[in-house]
Amino acid sequence: MAGAGKVLALTGGVGGAKLALGLADVLPAGDLHLLVNTGDDFEHLGLHISPDIDTLLYTLAGRANAAQGWGLEGETFNALHALGELGGETWFALGDRDLATHLWRSEQLAQGASLPEVTTALAARLGVGCAVHPMSADPVRTTVHTAAGELPFQHYFVRERCAPAVTGFTFTGIESAAPNPAVLQLIADGSLGGIVICPSNPFVSVDPILQLPGLAAALAGAGVPVVLVSPIVAGAALKGPAAKMMAELGVPATAPGVARHYATRYPGLLDHFVMDDSDATLVPEIERLGMAAAVAPTVMRSREDKQRLARAVLALLEL
Amino acid sequence: MAGAGKVLALTGGVGGAKLALGLADVLPAGDLHLLVNTGDDFEHLGLHISPDIDTLLYTLAGRANAAQGWGLEGETFNALHALGELGGETWFALGDRDLATHLWRSEQLAQGASLPEVTTALAARLGVGCAVHPMSADPVRTTVHTAAGELPFQHYFVRERCAPAVTGFTFTGIESAAPNPAVLQLIADGSLGGIVICPSNPFVSVDPILQLPGLAAALAGAGVPVVLVSPIVAGAALKGPAAKMMAELGVPATAPGVARHYATRYPGLLDHFVMDDSDATLVPEIERLGMAAAVAPTVMRSREDKQRLARAVLALLEL
Repeated sequence: MAGAGKVLALTGGVGGAKLALGLADVLPAGDLHLLVNTGDDFEHLGLHISPDIDTLLYTLAGRANAAQGWGLEGETFNALHALGELGGETWFALGDRDLATHLWRSEQLAQGASLPEVTTALAARLGVGCAVHPMSADPVRTTVHTAAGELPFQHYFVRERCAPAVTGFTFTGIESAAPNPAVLQLIADGSLGGIVICPSNPFVSVDPILQLPGLAAALAGAGVPVVLVSPIVAGAALKGPAAKMMAELGVPATAPGVARHYATRYPGLLDHFVMDDSDATLVPEIERLGMAAAVAPTVMRSREDKQRLARAVLALLEL
Repeated sequence: MAGAGKVLALTGGVGGAKLALGLADVLPAGDLHLLVNTGDDFEHLGLHISPDIDTLLYTLAGRANAAQGWGLEGETFNALHALGELGGETWFALGDRDLATHLWRSEQLAQGASLPEVTTALAARLGVGCAVHPMSADPVRTTVHTAAGELPFQHYFVRERCAPAVTGFTFTGIESAAPNPAVLQLIADGSLGGIVICPSNPFVSVDPILQLPGLAAALAGAGVPVVLVSPIVAGAALKGPAAKMMAELGVPATAPGVARHYATRYPGLLDHFVMDDSDATLVPEIERLGMAAAVAPTVMRSREDKQRLARAVLALLEL
């Protein structure tokens, strides 16, 4: 179809944001739509915080602190320090400028705007050129089941630094959460050319998106190829707890372990599985799961790395 | 009565905080109780902000920015700047460290603590040694009636910089607001030796306190002397819009104008009226209103100025 070149990319925070930036660089303006996990969202100090959306917006706006992987470049932490002096909670490192994002978002939500509306406005104000869609306007909250009990996601991830061994996950609210209608519309209107699942954590970044009622089926039925980039390279996660979680859940912490997760939960969804050059020997193992396997340099350090991987992904989508 | 040496001082923000600091310096620890206006409180960016309480706490903690009269010394404004970039409201200059106070207070209130409880905790955490009592746990919100329409107090005071001509005031919620019970208890238990009305704005700092149901009568009936320090010196307010308001309301912007305001609204409440040395010729005019007039250097620039005025006030209370 002429003009059917839009790309929908599912993503969580840091790892996914890198590929999202590469895609934003190489795609024509307006062709990239990001569908972002909000299972990590939480209410803290009275503020609505959307860590994955913010990492994505800051990355796309060129304001992210690349070295630390979260927050803003040149950030200060004077409010957090003062809050600590008052005996307030400081385990979630809120920077001063980052705080403005949360204050602004929280106020807009309190005034009745939806999370998608607030996110669109925030993206525009930060100068982000692509469409950033929270996965749902409805609250979904990831709980991590661990050997030490159930923990809200940010408590597990930030406060406990992913230390407790994971036994499972609950996405509270997901049964009644509607997928973002803008994304369903994008799938329905025939303008989509392909779907990308960014190298994000399968359990806590991508599963919350794909388990929204009807969404995985809508993506699988969109009639466009779906490409996933493995978040596991040579048996390790480049960032975050994905490999640790897989080991704790008794899943091999390998690219085929990731592929099997998707093949089992979302049969037929993935057409292409992209893994790092260093995992090339695992191609046959992936292909036995019924998807095409491709290798590419998936470790994205430089801006050029991101753009090169984006081009490789788009080539598989024939875009 | 033995030990009946406690002092209750009614105060608003900047001007009152100076005398409060002097009183805190010269009184034994535990003897000073401050009763603070909360009519200026407002909800902004989802936060509960108590400007007079904060000015008082920061002043007593030795953290206030003395030159500017509000906020914290060495403050930064990175969150506010970022909020401005997002198109958020920046007319109320929230510093980064100050923001921590509002976040902490707002969260405690959201969790069900009362404003007096939160204020007591905040005072303790900031190392303030005297008792700081918000005038009420119930919300009272000052509206300023002006030639340009009705304005919430902070909009008049900060956003409009007191420019519109004032025609009157409403203290929304005051009819159903209970005076802080700790203060009624202090009056009832016989430990009070005197009452001070600090040099604060009569209309928007002191009136909201004195118009709480039953409070003026309780103070007048406490059986201890009441001393007021004039906020007007030589026909001008040292800080804030008191003199401008008086002129706009058709009241002489003079110490006797202040005395007449209290004599009319709260007959018999004031025993002593302290005004600046420069207004000494006005003593007879004050005394004709049925109160004792005293002069003292009331312009408090140095710490010593504050302590000297505090001692002069305590001498009138025979404390």
